[in-house]
Amino acid sequence: MSGESGYYGKRRKWHSWGYEDEGITPAEVKEMAERVAQRLNIDEPVILPDPTLEELVLREPRIKIPASLQPFCTTDKWDRVFHTYGKSFKDLTKIYRRDFDNAPDVVAYPKDEADIAAVLDWCGDKGYAAIPFGGGSSVTDGFGCPEDYPGAVIIDLGNLNKILEVDDVSRCALIQAGILGPALEEQLKPKGLTLRHIPQSWEFSSLGGWIATRSSGHYATHLTHIDESVESLRVVTPKGTIENRRLPGSGAGPDPDRLFIGSEGSLGIITEAWMRLQGRVKFRANATITFDSFYQGAGAVREITQAGLFPANARYLDEQDAKFYGAGDGSKSVLLLGFESADHPVDAWLERGIEICKDHGGSVETKTGSGGDALQSSRSGAQGNWRKQFRYLPRMMHTRAAMGVVSFTFETAYTWDKFESIDTEVIRRLKKAQEEITGGGIVCRRFSFLYPDGPAPYYTVVAPSDHSRSLEDYQALSDVASDALTELGGTITHHHAVGRSFRPWYDKEVDPLYRAMLAGAKNTIDPNWIMNPGMILDRPAHFKMVG
Amino acid sequence: MSGESGYYGKRRKWHSWGYEDEGITPAEVKEMAERVAQRLNIDEPVILPDPTLEELVLREPRIKIPASLQPFCTTDKWDRVFHTYGKSFKDLTKIYRRDFDNAPDVVAYPKDEADIAAVLDWCGDKGYAAIPFGGGSSVTDGFGCPEDYPGAVIIDLGNLNKILEVDDVSRCALIQAGILGPALEEQLKPKGLTLRHIPQSWEFSSLGGWIATRSSGHYATHLTHIDESVESLRVVTPKGTIENRRLPGSGAGPDPDRLFIGSEGSLGIITEAWMRLQGRVKFRANATITFDSFYQGAGAVREITQAGLFPANARYLDEQDAKFYGAGDGSKSVLLLGFESADHPVDAWLERGIEICKDHGGSVETKTGSGGDALQSSRSGAQGNWRKQFRYLPRMMHTRAAMGVVSFTFETAYTWDKFESIDTEVIRRLKKAQEEITGGGIVCRRFSFLYPDGPAPYYTVVAPSDHSRSLEDYQALSDVASDALTELGGTITHHHAVGRSFRPWYDKEVDPLYRAMLAGAKNTIDPNWIMNPGMILDRPAHFKMVG
Repeated sequence: MSGESGYYGKRRKWHSWGYEDEGITPAEVKEMAERVAQRLNIDEPVILPDPTLEELVLREPRIKIPASLQPFCTTDKWDRVFHTYGKSFKDLTKIYRRDFDNAPDVVAYPKDEADIAAVLDWCGDKGYAAIPFGGGSSVTDGFGCPEDYPGAVIIDLGNLNKILEVDDVSRCALIQAGILGPALEEQLKPKGLTLRHIPQSWEFSSLGGWIATRSSGHYATHLTHIDESVESLRVVTPKGTIENRRLPGSGAGPDPDRLFIGSEGSLGIITEAWMRLQGRVKFRANATITFDSFYQGAGAVREITQAGLFPANARYLDEQDAKFYGAGDGSKSVLLLGFESADHPVDAWLERGIEICKDHGGSVETKTGSGGDALQSSRSGAQGNWRKQFRYLPRMMHTRAAMGVVSFTFETAYTWDKFESIDTEVIRRLKKAQEEITGGGIVCRRFSFLYPDGPAPYYTVVAPSDHSRSLEDYQALSDVASDALTELGGTITHHHAVGRSFRPWYDKEVDPLYRAMLAGAKNTIDPNWIMNPGMILDRPAHFKMVG
Repeated sequence: MSGESGYYGKRRKWHSWGYEDEGITPAEVKEMAERVAQRLNIDEPVILPDPTLEELVLREPRIKIPASLQPFCTTDKWDRVFHTYGKSFKDLTKIYRRDFDNAPDVVAYPKDEADIAAVLDWCGDKGYAAIPFGGGSSVTDGFGCPEDYPGAVIIDLGNLNKILEVDDVSRCALIQAGILGPALEEQLKPKGLTLRHIPQSWEFSSLGGWIATRSSGHYATHLTHIDESVESLRVVTPKGTIENRRLPGSGAGPDPDRLFIGSEGSLGIITEAWMRLQGRVKFRANATITFDSFYQGAGAVREITQAGLFPANARYLDEQDAKFYGAGDGSKSVLLLGFESADHPVDAWLERGIEICKDHGGSVETKTGSGGDALQSSRSGAQGNWRKQFRYLPRMMHTRAAMGVVSFTFETAYTWDKFESIDTEVIRRLKKAQEEITGGGIVCRRFSFLYPDGPAPYYTVVAPSDHSRSLEDYQALSDVASDALTELGGTITHHHAVGRSFRPWYDKEVDPLYRAMLAGAKNTIDPNWIMNPGMILDRPAHFKMVG
């Protein structure tokens, strides 16, 4: 038990990103703090020390584990603490404030679907919240405990971490939902296959979590969201198990998988999925292209996306974002354009992409063609720096919470016709709010994912604050962004999920009659409304327990 | 009124494919009949004459149109007759048998959403079936009248035939759902854009119909189903209108459009959609490649599909199918491989496709590169013959019903690992059934749509029969195919929809608990279960009208 079961024999840190045995040195913390302080013109920030388990005071568990569930359920302090928070700025700030008032009562580590069904039966009988937990990387309060339930049980899927079957003819695998990114790829590698779904949370997020939150991964275009890689799902609901048929495509009624993709645990627990895989990359061609302004390059990026070239990578960073990731000097916007294939050289694809960039005034800084050097190029220079930071930064995110500055990201998508006007207005409102609330700060953005009909801009917000008000400042700035996106026509989340954090805006974005239909569907399989309360839907006011 | 309103000033034939002013000459009918008779070794088939309106006896309308709806509703004979049947073999046979026992009572031609809402209110009050009608091309009994309703109203969307707005930056358009294929493309052409969704029914099927049935169109790979081209929907339900937000991508909850895509009118009437468009094709590269056996070439087709080359065309016809379409001499399987782009030459793509074919023993018969001649090549030779027959054949399908032979197609999809075993078994069972039931016949197949994880095989079945038993023979053979697909792991429909024809197999294919969830969703917006009864879901046995 104690959180080791699903995590390959070593325990993770509960107060930051990484395993317990991965030391972040005081020097690293100091360097990051200085870097942030310098960017924000803060003198000598107060850095709170890492919290210890002993310091924390938890409410007594409100509920008692039945004898039959005791072999895989626990109320141990470590387990309850580890499963209290995700990895948002808000979560990390609360962790550093030692605020664990709302820890779950029980943590379950089911070995199989029978265990899951048993826990759901128990929760259904008693009206306890049943909250699925994958890798714990939520940045939107996706598994916090609801206030109006008599008890809360976290269901940690870490033991469901195997690839059960590989079909290398169709290039698919049947994979258990609790598997984390690295184990998944490790088990696929001998077959020459890869899921190639690599969100920034990859090391500590699970297949089931990706599917339940409509995660976006490696591919800038084409296979952006996990949705398209799902061939079929198995879902355990309070009323039984749903198994969809493995099919490459079908026209038989509304797609049965799509109701669960993005359901954030509210409709049941995804336990297995047949996933569509890719051959391992053999050919690459990369270029780094700079533009004088973000909007200038955005035109090139749009044209590339609409041209049907399907670049795997088209990360486009504005001046500040590029500088922060070590991919530029802060004077230009930087496009990291990359093509890859398991089948054929992709030089013709890159050449056309570059041609489009040049038409839009872009300057090619580096370029590598197919073959071994292209792989190297994606690991050095601007591309390499970006890659290194992408992996390293989550490990350091707690530093900002610990030093009491505001630091968060948000992401959206909207159509190209509105791009400049929405982007300009979002930044204008945020800068104004920063001046009023935090006395300044930084807003920068990039594109990570692109569609022919619109980009998915990703914004980073950093602002000075202090420990007495950093949470409130965060919330005020975040609300400005959310209000703007919802009002101007964006989506409240492109790939971080709705969670509890964005529910008020989700409710404005999505038609109430459609949400009523979802509630009708949920009520059928979860009549006691125990599944991850607060996600997507609310328990009706007139609700009564069903016996 | 009288069916002209939505149909661009001319009336369509109610007993076959095409407009009233498009004559099919007796010589054409004779030629087709002889061609079929020769293939099936039938002497002198009895060809029933085309039915006339005067011959038909319809039940009196069971219901009375309220005064407020009279301006756009009718009980005229022509309108009721035209809206009785789709275009399946079964439909055409019943037409030639002059069997119109189950004609709808009323046909409504709403001008706008207010008219639609008014009809739904009326049907909801009275418990009449409200049946949306797009182009009438259903081959799965998708708009037939249910037996257990006191009245049936067809809602013909032909007046909703405009493109309301074009966003040429994001390459999208807001399009009314009743528009037919040709009008849609005609209105987009001046903008240099195209939906490029061209099912065989294109001339007489509507955007709303494509979406409601998850139609597949032009693209062999990548954008196969209409699903991916839908940016957002507007749907009128008995409880009000649902409007989803225009977004290129989102991670905010289960995709709200996907519940309606494939709902076959059971959850409301799609009235408008923002659709993702393509630039008009400027570059093409085509090749015709032959293989000694269907399974040999299937290996090449699989590899091409998994290589990420995204051919627009990869129609792969077996020996018999190729011969019938004039694309081969009957000795080889024929792959029509085509790449196209609005942006760049696609020769590199074709070259790699051909390389893969050669690795699998394919022989290149013709090849044309980018530029003007490639367009020409797709209009001549094997490609051109195939194209001509593809358009022409629907106009002649009634001939087979009129001559009393059995003739139908069915389509499915399943994963590549099962391809040879399922295909072999389906054909074995059909041939056996043909021997037993019709004393022989033909089964052939092709691939039209392909996925990295599996093909969508399309089968054609033709068998001798006569007017006394052709319907029964059809049903017996069709059941053998449906049973086999469902049992062996295919889907009951890849792109012809479920309709009433395939409901028994749909119910086996799709998890009952998921269908219960759909029923919960439907009940929320259609509490009187008036929307297209029999599609996807059944009215519960304990059903009571809600006031």
